[in-house]
Amino acid sequence: MASKAKAVGVGIIGFGTIGTGVVRVLRDEAKAIEERLGYPVRIVRIADLDTRTDRGVKLRKGVLTKDARKLINDPEVDIVVELIGGIEPARTFMLEAIEAGKSVATANKALLSEHGPELARAAERKGVAVGFEASTGGGIPILKVLRESLAGDKNLEVYGIVNGTANYILTEMSDGRGEFGEVLEAAQRMGLAEADPTYDVDGIDSLHKLVILVALAFGKRIKPKQVHVEGIRNISSIDIAYAKEFGYAIKLLAVARDTPKGVEARVHPTMVPVSHLLSQVGGAFNAVCLRGRALGTSIYYGQGAGMMPTATAVVADILDAARNMRDGKAGAQLVPTYGRPLKTLRSSPVVAMASTSHEHYIRLSVADKPGVLAKISSILGKEAISIATVSQHASPARGAVPLVLRTHRAGEAALKRALAKIGRLGDVRAKPVVIRVEETLGQAD
Amino acid sequence: MASKAKAVGVGIIGFGTIGTGVVRVLRDEAKAIEERLGYPVRIVRIADLDTRTDRGVKLRKGVLTKDARKLINDPEVDIVVELIGGIEPARTFMLEAIEAGKSVATANKALLSEHGPELARAAERKGVAVGFEASTGGGIPILKVLRESLAGDKNLEVYGIVNGTANYILTEMSDGRGEFGEVLEAAQRMGLAEADPTYDVDGIDSLHKLVILVALAFGKRIKPKQVHVEGIRNISSIDIAYAKEFGYAIKLLAVARDTPKGVEARVHPTMVPVSHLLSQVGGAFNAVCLRGRALGTSIYYGQGAGMMPTATAVVADILDAARNMRDGKAGAQLVPTYGRPLKTLRSSPVVAMASTSHEHYIRLSVADKPGVLAKISSILGKEAISIATVSQHASPARGAVPLVLRTHRAGEAALKRALAKIGRLGDVRAKPVVIRVEETLGQAD
Repeated sequence: MASKAKAVGVGIIGFGTIGTGVVRVLRDEAKAIEERLGYPVRIVRIADLDTRTDRGVKLRKGVLTKDARKLINDPEVDIVVELIGGIEPARTFMLEAIEAGKSVATANKALLSEHGPELARAAERKGVAVGFEASTGGGIPILKVLRESLAGDKNLEVYGIVNGTANYILTEMSDGRGEFGEVLEAAQRMGLAEADPTYDVDGIDSLHKLVILVALAFGKRIKPKQVHVEGIRNISSIDIAYAKEFGYAIKLLAVARDTPKGVEARVHPTMVPVSHLLSQVGGAFNAVCLRGRALGTSIYYGQGAGMMPTATAVVADILDAARNMRDGKAGAQLVPTYGRPLKTLRSSPVVAMASTSHEHYIRLSVADKPGVLAKISSILGKEAISIATVSQHASPARGAVPLVLRTHRAGEAALKRALAKIGRLGDVRAKPVVIRVEETLGQAD
Repeated sequence: MASKAKAVGVGIIGFGTIGTGVVRVLRDEAKAIEERLGYPVRIVRIADLDTRTDRGVKLRKGVLTKDARKLINDPEVDIVVELIGGIEPARTFMLEAIEAGKSVATANKALLSEHGPELARAAERKGVAVGFEASTGGGIPILKVLRESLAGDKNLEVYGIVNGTANYILTEMSDGRGEFGEVLEAAQRMGLAEADPTYDVDGIDSLHKLVILVALAFGKRIKPKQVHVEGIRNISSIDIAYAKEFGYAIKLLAVARDTPKGVEARVHPTMVPVSHLLSQVGGAFNAVCLRGRALGTSIYYGQGAGMMPTATAVVADILDAARNMRDGKAGAQLVPTYGRPLKTLRSSPVVAMASTSHEHYIRLSVADKPGVLAKISSILGKEAISIATVSQHASPARGAVPLVLRTHRAGEAALKRALAKIGRLGDVRAKPVVIRVEETLGQAD
């Protein structure tokens, strides 16, 4: 614990939305935080290239600087918060801060998913804390739950909705607010989606978070590039309507299971039964589901993004790091970065997507004439893919009608071969839309 | 941290269901736990008056004893787990263990809600940890979330389903499995309800948990006996049917809000809109909802009882206590019992139920003749209680029909006066059933 007289000093690199939120929480709750800790948490320095824009929060003179290194090397700064995002210079700043004996906190999922172990190694050497609660699930304290609360159980499965922008878009589409493109544009106008929405809508952001969740839940390190990732650009409101008819909601899920063959990990749009709580998670909310050997299913729900919710997660890391300090300086690392010594975080292969099997929803656009279904069924039959239901509704599109098939559990490789053959049929007018159906989320296989 | 060579020793007082679960988790996950901590956690002693029954777990010779004090005073025992329940001798055992310099963990909500501060004071003096994660929400790690993760935010509201037995009974009733008494009996036969179900179905268990949640969420100490508590014995399947018709589920909720006038705290059956995630929480599951000033709403869902889920919470406390130890002995208390120095946990009044206001569902059994509704409306009108809807369905009961009213927000005191007058009407055949309707859960007032 820091001596009573001394404040714990915080330096924030990156004075954008979340940085401003952190300043606001530390200011609004200053008295309560001091009461809890027994000493105050003080913002010593904030570094940002833009030192002019008014963020609506008052700072003491001299706090704002353009020079991140001045912040890192300030002896009054005990904890460095990195909020600039991206790999560099964020990585270098964090390594330098750790080297200087400071605990660090970050919301940077890209950095953590790629270079987390490098940061953990440096932190282990110096006995400082690396907090990244804000990187995954926004304000949901899921990382600490995995790192500490569920540390005595064996986690078998972790899955959920971890990107608020994609979930917002799917919710809006489900509420009849238009097709993907229109809803995305509206979200961009309202500041709910980035100008370049790639990370959010193509599943990359969810992938980064999944890699982090896998490390904490299973104690396994997987490479992001080995994970199968699909985004939501191909989802159309007609798919959402079919999903509703069948009793499902379409959600962009990140899913991982710890199996004897390696980690099964994937990000893709998924039909979730309306009876599953995940189907009820709307708007920019996130929810992470865990299945543990002893605990069974538990679910963590909250705001997945936004200034203030994300700021609370950063502040939680600051308080943890402050408590971890003894006699005013960082010492023995009480809870390691991954909740375990880094040497016990083991690299694991990712189970190849082609070797997994799922139920599928397949929407084809086919010529409105007899015999088409027979040809398609025959192709699926040859790949031993069994059709569960077929739906064909009238459509206004000239000459083409939507044909919707639902398969029983079928191997991904067989399905891929079948879809390639189906795509070559003259009567199939557009690229098939395929959405996996998850009936067994949270259940033992 | 304990020196690498040394194991952390655990003593368990009370070898019932949860105690057996703790032994199983510590045995099943022994390797994983040692890998995480860097040293093993070893069960040194288990004390129970019954040393004969086979619990299906193998113990080394000499582990089992009838003498709790032998366990408490064993120098090999670093952490004492109390799982006998009730106030005494649990309280004395825990105080003695703390006095002996040992960290303690317990699932005892009655003890914590009555004597938590006494334990916290003793623990603060000795620098040891008091863990009680298993006391509230079963396997849901809600207490650590409040104590540490959300420590930087101001919590405004905490509410939820915290009794699995009551929720199981209401779910079974909702699924058409019979009336309260039949469903309770079936639950007792299956071991899902105690022989004496009072604590669970009359809301007392929920009350104990609410007192604990209030302390951690708001930093306020309230007295259990000041809290308004109603159980579920009066709920009939006809109420559940009406609730469904109106778009609600009936749940036994524990609700607390931090207000300038004191803590509003109450336990009672509640009509929850089907759009709220709480309405979807079925069976023996629990869910706790929080609303924070910065975080907004977050929800924590999982198994609220049961051997293995509850055991994971006890094990989480054991691991926390183990990490808190330095050089093989308890030292500075890193996170205090209530997440704050005990002197900052302030006694708070509970807002009198009579001064709160709610929407109500009122079911009356009235004579099937004209003029009855006019009399009832007149009584309500005089108390300025505004009726939102009236439903009257045919009923097979001789001469009596159910009359269901829904009120707009009305003061509890006025409603109580009105109901007393209504009860005295000759045409009213049974005690009115009143269920509060919560439309504004998780919303600012």
